[in-house]
Amino acid sequence: MAGGVGSRFWPLSSEERPKQFLDVLGCGKTLLQLTADRFSGVVPAENVWVVTSAAYHDLVREQLPDLPEGNILLEPCRRNTAPCIAYVSWRIKKINPRANIVVSPSDHVVADIDAFKTAVAEAMEFSAETDAIVTLGIRPDRPETGYGYIEGDLSYSSSRKKNIFRVDSFKEKPALEVAQEYIKQNNYFWNSGIFVWSVNTIVNAFRVYCPEMARLFEGLMPVLGTEGEQEAINREFPNCENISVDYAIMEKAEEIFVYPASFGWSDLGSWSSLRQQVKQDLHGNACIGENIDLYETNNCIVHTTQEKKVVVQGLDGYVVVEKDDILLICKLSEEQRIRLFH
Amino acid sequence: MAGGVGSRFWPLSSEERPKQFLDVLGCGKTLLQLTADRFSGVVPAENVWVVTSAAYHDLVREQLPDLPEGNILLEPCRRNTAPCIAYVSWRIKKINPRANIVVSPSDHVVADIDAFKTAVAEAMEFSAETDAIVTLGIRPDRPETGYGYIEGDLSYSSSRKKNIFRVDSFKEKPALEVAQEYIKQNNYFWNSGIFVWSVNTIVNAFRVYCPEMARLFEGLMPVLGTEGEQEAINREFPNCENISVDYAIMEKAEEIFVYPASFGWSDLGSWSSLRQQVKQDLHGNACIGENIDLYETNNCIVHTTQEKKVVVQGLDGYVVVEKDDILLICKLSEEQRIRLFH
Repeated sequence: MAGGVGSRFWPLSSEERPKQFLDVLGCGKTLLQLTADRFSGVVPAENVWVVTSAAYHDLVREQLPDLPEGNILLEPCRRNTAPCIAYVSWRIKKINPRANIVVSPSDHVVADIDAFKTAVAEAMEFSAETDAIVTLGIRPDRPETGYGYIEGDLSYSSSRKKNIFRVDSFKEKPALEVAQEYIKQNNYFWNSGIFVWSVNTIVNAFRVYCPEMARLFEGLMPVLGTEGEQEAINREFPNCENISVDYAIMEKAEEIFVYPASFGWSDLGSWSSLRQQVKQDLHGNACIGENIDLYETNNCIVHTTQEKKVVVQGLDGYVVVEKDDILLICKLSEEQRIRLFH
Repeated sequence: MAGGVGSRFWPLSSEERPKQFLDVLGCGKTLLQLTADRFSGVVPAENVWVVTSAAYHDLVREQLPDLPEGNILLEPCRRNTAPCIAYVSWRIKKINPRANIVVSPSDHVVADIDAFKTAVAEAMEFSAETDAIVTLGIRPDRPETGYGYIEGDLSYSSSRKKNIFRVDSFKEKPALEVAQEYIKQNNYFWNSGIFVWSVNTIVNAFRVYCPEMARLFEGLMPVLGTEGEQEAINREFPNCENISVDYAIMEKAEEIFVYPASFGWSDLGSWSSLRQQVKQDLHGNACIGENIDLYETNNCIVHTTQEKKVVVQGLDGYVVVEKDDILLICKLSEEQRIRLFH
């Protein structure tokens, strides 16, 4: 899924180039490229599909040159994750009705790639053998209020996989006190938005919980994979309900499983989370860019292009971002206002 | 005098383009251009001379296109103000041994141009009729520790000009308590570095107080204004003592006068002084640049190029400068360290 617009990373991200298409970590690869890399060895290259906005086709093409052209699915408008997942699910079903699928956002980061691959492989083994909907749940290491949580029932593991558990409920982003309660227990996990299921399972789930959307894509089956696909999608896709897969399926489905994992995951939803995710100096500063000099500066994130020299003196707890013709300096504690600054 | 390198305005200024060649105020003119403008109507255009480093010839040419080419004097190396003034004094003497001269830095600012012109005209009237060395002293409005002071003897004014007084002494940049004492009295003035004298007076002063330097330029008299001038200067100028006119002449000469004036002068020696000099918003912020948005920001100076959008949230008492490939953020209270940050 590579259709998001990520306004919280302004001015680094923009609607023209949202964060999945940016080298947010300063590692030489964009988040989309890092996401694709994570699946190498798990999913054959020809089985990777990218669903994005029509406007981002060229960015995907450029950043994933090995991706078959036909594996880029273009949404004519943004309709949140449920229609996105429905589209690619029916598209894959057309090719292989017995396919096994991992759905992943393309703008998250994972620190421990091996642990990630292990988790995905184990979850896929499970979903291939069952009709289970599996979510990857991240073991929390702090009472994060920026994530949704999954409450697992640790007494009820699958007979096939002892480390996959029934989901009791999904929890919205909690208040701090609630998050603190969650992490005192050991059965609450961050909802990573990474799902694993067979194509049959998810298509059936759409039929049960989103019958209109299911009918729409069922009706498109004949043109999927043909020359008429894009035109039909452009016509019909806007009629889909604008709804997340969490609301459309997850919170309604009966049998959902969680695979608790620890692979250093972050949704990079804010400058603060990026600061936490990259290497910090002894003073808690995260610098992304080669030519950054800090003096008496603590707990800041400084993000710049490689060519720029940045000198910061005397800041504590700020984000400093410089990109092209925009410079932003903002307290990290006020970063939720950044989207209002454009 | 346009040969300074102004390292305190980094990254706005650089050795390649020091502050006199920059539009520091964001008014569309460089400090050199503003300085030249201040003398229009006081000094005929053909009588304006610019002494600068050879490296800055093209900048002067470009910024003062009406200046006669022969009126740009090029120093082959930096030797402070005394040799600079000696050179142009003998050069002018060659043309007109009865000339009357104003010496001015090119990187200062003056808010009240009319008051400046009046002061210069009156001081020149005086210096034309006498053999007086006259300095323009600025009436202080605060106990500034960044300027040298001139102690005047207000009981001893010239019989020709009642508002021109004998100088008792020159004072180095004072400590704050000392500066506070100075401004309690009314006979201490900031040393503006603007001098007025006849060519005879200054040449004689060099002969008395800097005899070696005087002999050097006396020896060059035959080639000044000829094709051989630059070559001879390139050969001899480096032999001059590296010394300011303040040390070389002012502090030694017997008969020095001060013309106390108030024309909104600043030497723009620091980002703080620039902040004081330009229009501030209600929160004490001085913005130079068109596209600057401030939120919860006070007492800052933000300087950027016209094309750059800058958003600053939550800063108090900082300088933020963005120029080409350099960004500087620094507490104004620490700005004396900026020269160490390059």
